[in-house]
Amino acid sequence: MNIFTMVGIFRRILLLRTPLRHLRPHRTLSFAARLSPVDLNAICCSSGQFVASTRKLHVGTDGPKSPPAAGAPERLPFSRVTEEDLAFFRKILPGRTITDPDLVESSNVDWLKSMKDFFSPAGSSEVLLRPQKTEEVSQIIRYCNSRNLAVNPQGGNTGLVGGSVPVYDEIILSTSLMNNILSFDSISGILTCQAGCVLENLSLYLEERDYIMPLDLGAKGSCQIGGNVATNAGGLRLLRYGSLHGTVLGLEVVLADGQVLDCLASLRKDNTGYDLKQLFIGSEGTLGVITAVSILCPRKPKSVNVVFLGCETYEQLLKAFQLCRGMLGEILSAFEFLDSECMRLLNTHLKLPNPISDCPFYIVIETSGSDPKHDAEKLHNFLEEAMASSLVSDGTVATEESKIKALWSMRERVTEALTHDGFTYKYDISLPLEQIYQLVIDMRQHLGGRAKSVVGYGHVGDGNLHLNITSSTKDPALLAAIEPFVYEWTASCRGSISAEHGLGLKKRNYIYYSKPSQAVGLMGNIKAMLDPKGILNPYKTLPDDVK
Amino acid sequence: MNIFTMVGIFRRILLLRTPLRHLRPHRTLSFAARLSPVDLNAICCSSGQFVASTRKLHVGTDGPKSPPAAGAPERLPFSRVTEEDLAFFRKILPGRTITDPDLVESSNVDWLKSMKDFFSPAGSSEVLLRPQKTEEVSQIIRYCNSRNLAVNPQGGNTGLVGGSVPVYDEIILSTSLMNNILSFDSISGILTCQAGCVLENLSLYLEERDYIMPLDLGAKGSCQIGGNVATNAGGLRLLRYGSLHGTVLGLEVVLADGQVLDCLASLRKDNTGYDLKQLFIGSEGTLGVITAVSILCPRKPKSVNVVFLGCETYEQLLKAFQLCRGMLGEILSAFEFLDSECMRLLNTHLKLPNPISDCPFYIVIETSGSDPKHDAEKLHNFLEEAMASSLVSDGTVATEESKIKALWSMRERVTEALTHDGFTYKYDISLPLEQIYQLVIDMRQHLGGRAKSVVGYGHVGDGNLHLNITSSTKDPALLAAIEPFVYEWTASCRGSISAEHGLGLKKRNYIYYSKPSQAVGLMGNIKAMLDPKGILNPYKTLPDDVK
Repeated sequence: MNIFTMVGIFRRILLLRTPLRHLRPHRTLSFAARLSPVDLNAICCSSGQFVASTRKLHVGTDGPKSPPAAGAPERLPFSRVTEEDLAFFRKILPGRTITDPDLVESSNVDWLKSMKDFFSPAGSSEVLLRPQKTEEVSQIIRYCNSRNLAVNPQGGNTGLVGGSVPVYDEIILSTSLMNNILSFDSISGILTCQAGCVLENLSLYLEERDYIMPLDLGAKGSCQIGGNVATNAGGLRLLRYGSLHGTVLGLEVVLADGQVLDCLASLRKDNTGYDLKQLFIGSEGTLGVITAVSILCPRKPKSVNVVFLGCETYEQLLKAFQLCRGMLGEILSAFEFLDSECMRLLNTHLKLPNPISDCPFYIVIETSGSDPKHDAEKLHNFLEEAMASSLVSDGTVATEESKIKALWSMRERVTEALTHDGFTYKYDISLPLEQIYQLVIDMRQHLGGRAKSVVGYGHVGDGNLHLNITSSTKDPALLAAIEPFVYEWTASCRGSISAEHGLGLKKRNYIYYSKPSQAVGLMGNIKAMLDPKGILNPYKTLPDDVK
Repeated sequence: MNIFTMVGIFRRILLLRTPLRHLRPHRTLSFAARLSPVDLNAICCSSGQFVASTRKLHVGTDGPKSPPAAGAPERLPFSRVTEEDLAFFRKILPGRTITDPDLVESSNVDWLKSMKDFFSPAGSSEVLLRPQKTEEVSQIIRYCNSRNLAVNPQGGNTGLVGGSVPVYDEIILSTSLMNNILSFDSISGILTCQAGCVLENLSLYLEERDYIMPLDLGAKGSCQIGGNVATNAGGLRLLRYGSLHGTVLGLEVVLADGQVLDCLASLRKDNTGYDLKQLFIGSEGTLGVITAVSILCPRKPKSVNVVFLGCETYEQLLKAFQLCRGMLGEILSAFEFLDSECMRLLNTHLKLPNPISDCPFYIVIETSGSDPKHDAEKLHNFLEEAMASSLVSDGTVATEESKIKALWSMRERVTEALTHDGFTYKYDISLPLEQIYQLVIDMRQHLGGRAKSVVGYGHVGDGNLHLNITSSTKDPALLAAIEPFVYEWTASCRGSISAEHGLGLKKRNYIYYSKPSQAVGLMGNIKAMLDPKGILNPYKTLPDDVK
């Protein structure tokens, strides 16, 4: 407890809990949206009827078919890697064409190690390619396209939806060795670098030059900027600096036929034709391989403060957010939350003590500004007002880096605490701010005693809830109780079933809960136009019925 | 002069002018980039060879061909409007199908009235349709697509590149009557409205609710949000709040076949599949008709200050920008500039007196923050430091609204002053910050005494120069001296030949100066996929060789 600077002005205020808003009636869902995952699988995999009518067949030599597993797509008839193929790769990438199974293995397994739970056998690639240059990527992709060999582009392999690992035997194309910074303009703050630069390394490089990256993630030590862009990563700074659709200024992309698309402008403004780079932001490597990125970086703040507050109700938490936006204004850089169940898991599994007294809800507020005195004054005024209005009941402030890190860890280590609690079902939901916590309450009620823990936390300032449900072991009956309930609930509020994690393999068939079938059809047309053989990251992002 | 609050601490400092950087050698341009407009016309229109190999022919009844004029495309073989067509439109839009030539005329003419100078006869539409609902737009477009009738979607008609008016007899589809606000969430600041809402009306609506629009333009009294999004409008607040690619959260778009694409999410985060709405931002109505917009709005600042400063050199101006970014940090909301030639035109034609002493360069800095005391202190510290470092030689500050407006008018009324100076050749260029003013210097030197005035102003904080050249009358010899010089110069710095105005009709064939041919080819594929008959805003955005 002594690592925290307790602010004397705080006092606990007992507040009457007001009843939370009841779930709004579900809007009428489209046919596809009303299907459960089981139904979708029935349509997409078992009956084969719908699939056969729309799926393009791939031409090439095909080995024996793997049996389709639950939730898994059928292996598409891509060619299998031959000795001649390996000889070609070794010529292009001498010493960087990896076939030793021990070395390939870590690239076959996702960070959560959950793919084998999702379906078995997942991730059986035998080839890992490690190019250093765009031209090498271009030669590889051109060759794979001509040979009808499927490719799984891979960055830091920190994704949570099975988008970054091969489903079957796709060739793994790692960007890890493409890690050069190409240029940095210290006047405009525009950084241009290869796709494989690790986010934390870029942050360190920039901090020495008085700038920061516009995004920050828990996975920053491993994730790569190319992967961040390919998955449209959100993270902790989105509230302040916006999404990558706004901050990414240029991309270099290798297309499915091996052509290098040069949209690597480093200009803030460019209205010459359609903004093609946008197509690749968030496309999870299914439309092209991002090889270089140009991104606008904000100046490094001169002062950072973090506050950890307790609230009695979610309504008060929302009111505190509104007050905060008004009073902290331009220095607000994060507004995150966790519930008391998260705190219980942090206490139990990680032995992290609660820095304040027990409350139903906790808020983490971060400010980043250019004047320490002004920032402290704004924060002080906000805290006084929040207490006077009885919006918060307890709290603590940190201004030193070690204390800031300690407070942030209460929010960032919830994921880790969950892994100790049991088998975790993870949901990454966008909702209108008022509805965010109602989903957690309704899910608890819906599941009754079937789950071990049902917890809610996330980027409340961005309308992004991380809903996590644990059980002692993998529990298909529990899963059947969670899904499609969680997706139908989200669709009823016009929310998104994937706020920032993407769809990857695991969520691909649930896209209809958040997008009309017509939009999904158009996505399929774009995929067919850019990657007619479907070699780039197959089985990902798009649902089985449009691939 | 008495409208300005002169700040006592200012003093003029005579500074030695340092020589400006010389023009960097031009990089090797691609074949297309090296063509002059005349060459492009020769290829695209006269020889027909290149055109014939790539242009898709449109099917339909065609009247007599209009002769191609200089810079003008040939009329494509769209159908012509018949009495049966008018009867259909009148059934869908009773009283809102306008055919009276006097009423249609203003929609045939662009705001600058420059299209007739560009080529004659331009803008000869005989039908103006004024739908109120998305469903009406859908019915109209579906019908036009089936009849092969070309459509010119039109918002406030304030564009500067001929994108918003018909080239020949395209049916004008105005969004002016689609002006309802659909929803506003006062917690998240997310506004959803029809495309025809006038920007200023939205601003007024939001200001009453303590929010502002994330964009602001000189044309705000007429321009519409749908048109803003379709042209990816930049404007005065981009430096602070970023581009529309980041702030637009959702769009509803009527596609060329009449389908309504519902991407009208009002969520900050949504990673379910490809971000389709991005395709339509900046596509100038060539891929679909935007009918509704959802946009993230910032809180209304509690304190706004404007400073008008004088600098002796462009290098000092840039250093002032860097200092400003560091010391004003999060409250900086605009950093604009004009040169002494602009000031001369403001004095001469609009009788606007210079609020400070004469300088080669003038800066307009705006701050927007949440605490008037803090903002004033930051500004004061910055000004002291800027003077101590001899970066600025004179200046004045405004904090009251009327004075702020007066200072802003020095920047905003340059366009108006130019119209009084003579026939104006306008260029909207993005460049790396260091190169911005070198283009103005080189252009002056290049033109010698041929031009009346060569002036530079713009959004220097965003790297956006407005280069304007006047002559007493329209002067083809002067134009031939300006172009392709200005485009080649821009291409040599990897700049953009259209930072924020778009390409429209006037700049479409210069796209290759800023985009590789492969990217332009991909744009053409996207157009062909979404609008196979090419009925939506034909002759715009894409160059003649890919239409």
